[in-house]
Amino acid sequence: MSGTATADSPAPSSLSRYLDGDFWRAKDVVREGISQCELFHTSSYDLTLDQNRELTMDRLHYVMRMPLMRQHLKDQVKERQPGFIAKTVGLTELICFADMATGVKLGVVCGLYGGAVTNLGSPEQKDTWYLPATDLEFTGMFAMTERGHGSNVRGILTEAHYSPSTQEFIIHTPCADAQKMYIGNSMKGNYASVFAQLIIDGQSQGPHCFIVPIRDKHGVMYPGVTAVDMKHKEGLHGVDNGILIFDNVRIPRENLLSKFGSVSADGVYSSPIQNKSCRFNAMLAALTPTRLGVTVQATAAMKLGLIIAVRYSHSRRQFGPKDQDEVKIIEHQTQYLRLMPHLAAVLALIFTNRFVAEMMDDALCSGEDLESNRTLQALVAGLKAYSTWQNVQCLQECRECTGGMGFMMENRIPAVKCDSDVFVTFEGDNMVMLQVVVRELMAKYTHQMGTSLVGGLIRNWTNSISDSLQTSFLGFSTDRVGDLSFLLKALAYRERVLQRSLAARLYEKVQKNKDPFFDAWNSCLHHITSLALAHIHTVTLEQFALAVQRCPVEEDRALLTKFCLLHGTSLLYQERGWYLEHHYLTPSTSRQIRTQLLELCRSVKDEALKVVSDFNVPSCCIQAPIAGIANPRAQWAFYSPPDPAHRDSPLPQHPRDNITSKL
Amino acid sequence: MSGTATADSPAPSSLSRYLDGDFWRAKDVVREGISQCELFHTSSYDLTLDQNRELTMDRLHYVMRMPLMRQHLKDQVKERQPGFIAKTVGLTELICFADMATGVKLGVVCGLYGGAVTNLGSPEQKDTWYLPATDLEFTGMFAMTERGHGSNVRGILTEAHYSPSTQEFIIHTPCADAQKMYIGNSMKGNYASVFAQLIIDGQSQGPHCFIVPIRDKHGVMYPGVTAVDMKHKEGLHGVDNGILIFDNVRIPRENLLSKFGSVSADGVYSSPIQNKSCRFNAMLAALTPTRLGVTVQATAAMKLGLIIAVRYSHSRRQFGPKDQDEVKIIEHQTQYLRLMPHLAAVLALIFTNRFVAEMMDDALCSGEDLESNRTLQALVAGLKAYSTWQNVQCLQECRECTGGMGFMMENRIPAVKCDSDVFVTFEGDNMVMLQVVVRELMAKYTHQMGTSLVGGLIRNWTNSISDSLQTSFLGFSTDRVGDLSFLLKALAYRERVLQRSLAARLYEKVQKNKDPFFDAWNSCLHHITSLALAHIHTVTLEQFALAVQRCPVEEDRALLTKFCLLHGTSLLYQERGWYLEHHYLTPSTSRQIRTQLLELCRSVKDEALKVVSDFNVPSCCIQAPIAGIANPRAQWAFYSPPDPAHRDSPLPQHPRDNITSKL
Repeated sequence: MSGTATADSPAPSSLSRYLDGDFWRAKDVVREGISQCELFHTSSYDLTLDQNRELTMDRLHYVMRMPLMRQHLKDQVKERQPGFIAKTVGLTELICFADMATGVKLGVVCGLYGGAVTNLGSPEQKDTWYLPATDLEFTGMFAMTERGHGSNVRGILTEAHYSPSTQEFIIHTPCADAQKMYIGNSMKGNYASVFAQLIIDGQSQGPHCFIVPIRDKHGVMYPGVTAVDMKHKEGLHGVDNGILIFDNVRIPRENLLSKFGSVSADGVYSSPIQNKSCRFNAMLAALTPTRLGVTVQATAAMKLGLIIAVRYSHSRRQFGPKDQDEVKIIEHQTQYLRLMPHLAAVLALIFTNRFVAEMMDDALCSGEDLESNRTLQALVAGLKAYSTWQNVQCLQECRECTGGMGFMMENRIPAVKCDSDVFVTFEGDNMVMLQVVVRELMAKYTHQMGTSLVGGLIRNWTNSISDSLQTSFLGFSTDRVGDLSFLLKALAYRERVLQRSLAARLYEKVQKNKDPFFDAWNSCLHHITSLALAHIHTVTLEQFALAVQRCPVEEDRALLTKFCLLHGTSLLYQERGWYLEHHYLTPSTSRQIRTQLLELCRSVKDEALKVVSDFNVPSCCIQAPIAGIANPRAQWAFYSPPDPAHRDSPLPQHPRDNITSKL
Repeated sequence: MSGTATADSPAPSSLSRYLDGDFWRAKDVVREGISQCELFHTSSYDLTLDQNRELTMDRLHYVMRMPLMRQHLKDQVKERQPGFIAKTVGLTELICFADMATGVKLGVVCGLYGGAVTNLGSPEQKDTWYLPATDLEFTGMFAMTERGHGSNVRGILTEAHYSPSTQEFIIHTPCADAQKMYIGNSMKGNYASVFAQLIIDGQSQGPHCFIVPIRDKHGVMYPGVTAVDMKHKEGLHGVDNGILIFDNVRIPRENLLSKFGSVSADGVYSSPIQNKSCRFNAMLAALTPTRLGVTVQATAAMKLGLIIAVRYSHSRRQFGPKDQDEVKIIEHQTQYLRLMPHLAAVLALIFTNRFVAEMMDDALCSGEDLESNRTLQALVAGLKAYSTWQNVQCLQECRECTGGMGFMMENRIPAVKCDSDVFVTFEGDNMVMLQVVVRELMAKYTHQMGTSLVGGLIRNWTNSISDSLQTSFLGFSTDRVGDLSFLLKALAYRERVLQRSLAARLYEKVQKNKDPFFDAWNSCLHHITSLALAHIHTVTLEQFALAVQRCPVEEDRALLTKFCLLHGTSLLYQERGWYLEHHYLTPSTSRQIRTQLLELCRSVKDEALKVVSDFNVPSCCIQAPIAGIANPRAQWAFYSPPDPAHRDSPLPQHPRDNITSKL
């Protein structure tokens, strides 16, 4: 059935295929599977917490049993598989459309727990601890975060003492701050991949990952393990987050995932990486794909919100010229100004996510370890921060732009908003993620500029003058503001200047004033986060621009070009204060940017209907009656789906009653 | 007990009294009443929808039975009562601290339904339809919004035909778009104040308000009335919103609230206001106090969020200098930069809300009808938009700044966020509210400039030149950027320029190009909303500045001065792009504004603890364990309350285990 038209959905357009990417066939199979499954046909906001968790587990099992998914999950143990990451994120997105909690739970069981085993374990360990999970023999959880150390994971306090006499590790929670917290699947799962300080003869080798049995198949807890239910959250009600506490829990020596460190029977530690800090970095690098997963989940959430908000905006009418029919709310300037830049950003993210996934696949296929590719790690961290903040803003606009209807659970937006709100926090708090980006950018910068930071700063100064000459020309050449190359250069310029000035500030503070590094860094945090976002802005616009170039169908290319210009214009507009401060924009070009933003938003508002339709989200996932999906539980919310062919029709969707003529 | 110190709460500080305002004694009584009531001691997020509604009704009854509240609610029928509005909003805020849904439900029953009866009814009608509600003999609802007309209420379609033979009105819903929607208390309430087109002999006299019995005291629906439950929302689960549909429901002639229009037995219509549009405006003006109520609710929500986020930020530690203890998260530059401007905005709102309430009281006491005071109406509309958007941003920052803990329902922030999210929509969508502001500003402008818009524009031009001379001096005099007078002038300047340029643009479009007014207005909507917010920004800073001047205690004045400067600096910083475009700021002064913002945020971060404590919110209302309020259901979330006296202590709240020394 894959790829064919059904009664429910017409044959996908060329743009839809382009947005789907290489794995559209696999995606079609999963779309079909989700659409056929009753479990995804109703929403779950009126269930109790327990019912919600049960339903999510059932949904997860259904997803994992789909033959295509099952095979794909098994493929995770193979190495150097072309396109594995790209396919994973593509399929993940579909599960998230259907239900965010199921997507997150799949991420916990296969991405995080499975990722820990497959990336940190030996081949035998993968067979023992991961493959049976793909056959649903058991499920796993990922226990890194502790009460005392969420963002600063290096400081985790859980202990794993090696006992040579029994050849066991003793996993122990020495204090309240060492409790493993927010652990997903902790009320249901059987095994946990637990990060703990490996201690041999009282000496720590730094954090390592251990497989700890939590409860048996009948749900009976193993001795010494306590799981505390954290219960109610803002969203993701189907995900059971809890606390794990270990009271001297003994596990066999073989349960230490041994790729980056192992202990011999007699207690001799060995590792391919000597430096403790590097070793921990290597382990953290294994999380990079999961972090990209969060970006994809955020992108899915935005798509859902925009499909609903854009459709409703094309159906609902309110206000209008005197003595005439009311206009569709999308016609109000503020309405399209609020929604269209988010639609452009989502398109940018689709192509950027794909680029990063392919980069990761290339790295893995060439046998490169992810930990050595710091650029990639930084990019994924930054993209996670950018996309999840975009998501918060986007869904808030979607909520507000759909008025009271957008506050009703039947219309899906509130649930997606509450579910995805935590994306800014989990898998690395966004503020920490941005600092990861800048550490990498600064390392690169220092490298480029030679080993001496001073020498670098001098060269920087010279470059900066030529930059200012070059760009003041651009700034005054007002007819080029609408140019994509102008936008790309502007974003790159800002990144470069922010980078150089940060280097200069840090140099001043640390080298000259001898400030402690932590204080110096902290006093620049606002600068640092601005730089990190500037970097990611540049990457998203570049990738969008490249994707436009590569687009094979002329009509689609023309459409994407407009959205690409809109994305760049919107990014520039947000930072016009900075550009004016740096004389990159003149007051008049700055005003021109605003005019251009308004004009671009206006010009794409009707085509937005085509774009959201080409996201190709099954209607059982959209659910919202205001988006034209009938729901017997909320007939009052139904709005006929807007007909793109008649988008300029002056006829109101709901013809007024005769009464109006009398008034 | 009022005003005295209890074991739980020490004697209020002078700042706390100043923030409380004139009605602190009444507020203390209500605080005491809430603290003593078991109903407010647990949160309700784990209840079913029905349980939630029951609990909210119980809480509402408790609140309305408190002798002080009961008397105050009865006072609503009296006219010219000094301080009535100011006292109302002060007490409303306390109920919102305890539970947002109870606050909203009180607003529906007494503010909206009660407000309709007391503002639009005759003295006899007040006795019949409102006073018994204060004795809990019945409850009411407010039925204005329709499916087809939410924002554009002028277009409501519900009909009230007068039948002279029976001296009745026949209330009827002629089509789906005429259904009354989102009606609060519609699943429980007994009477509805229904807005409908009054039709006599087939001719409409425009919308009027009628009291329609919905269900009897036993909950049995009256014939012809249908109420459809809209069920689940993002928040405010305790408020039962629904749809009302009328099938030729007959009500006595006396049920037309008759202040602005009545019908004689034989069907002759009379009204003190001849113009239909003016008449409807007069009726809408009666809603002005309720709209101020939303601003107060939003302010309450922000206070709750900030109390929790600021306290946690002073308890929780993460990251720190190498080989030293981790620092409190409030020390991270981004953390104080995210929270402190919101705290400053809340202080500004406290004083602005009070100013507006007093303005309203003065108007009412001088016998002025609110409808004639368009300035006041515009101010309230704009303040509602500004405060509710501030609230969305503020609670989002509070959520993110408290990390994973801020996603847990136990810590209150998510519930307050979800409850208050809809404030941007209800009682008038914010985008519509901003247009109300600008209609008034433009009317005033045209008036000031003489009847001719052209003449006005010429004078405008002359003024604008002198402005630019005056301000370029300020712009370059960099040492004055930190001055409050500089900030006040800058905000006022922006408002003035935006106003003039809008007038010029509209003149160009409508007078010269003969564009239809709707199109001209719509193409300026972004400009219009910017102007409206600029106006409100100015008002909030002015009121904050005046409140600082009036503050009697020197130490408090010094503290408030810093926050006032921060508020102004933050408003200016947000719009620095505009100021640079208009040469009001030079690039170097603009950078100075950023430095000043960072420096002010840093300088108040410790005093923030005192400010949130001086909000004087009962701890049973704060609830969050991360804010130091113990909760047996979530011991894992407890953080000892930060001790302001030891705020600079280098000792961590949770001393690290011995293990750290070994690692």
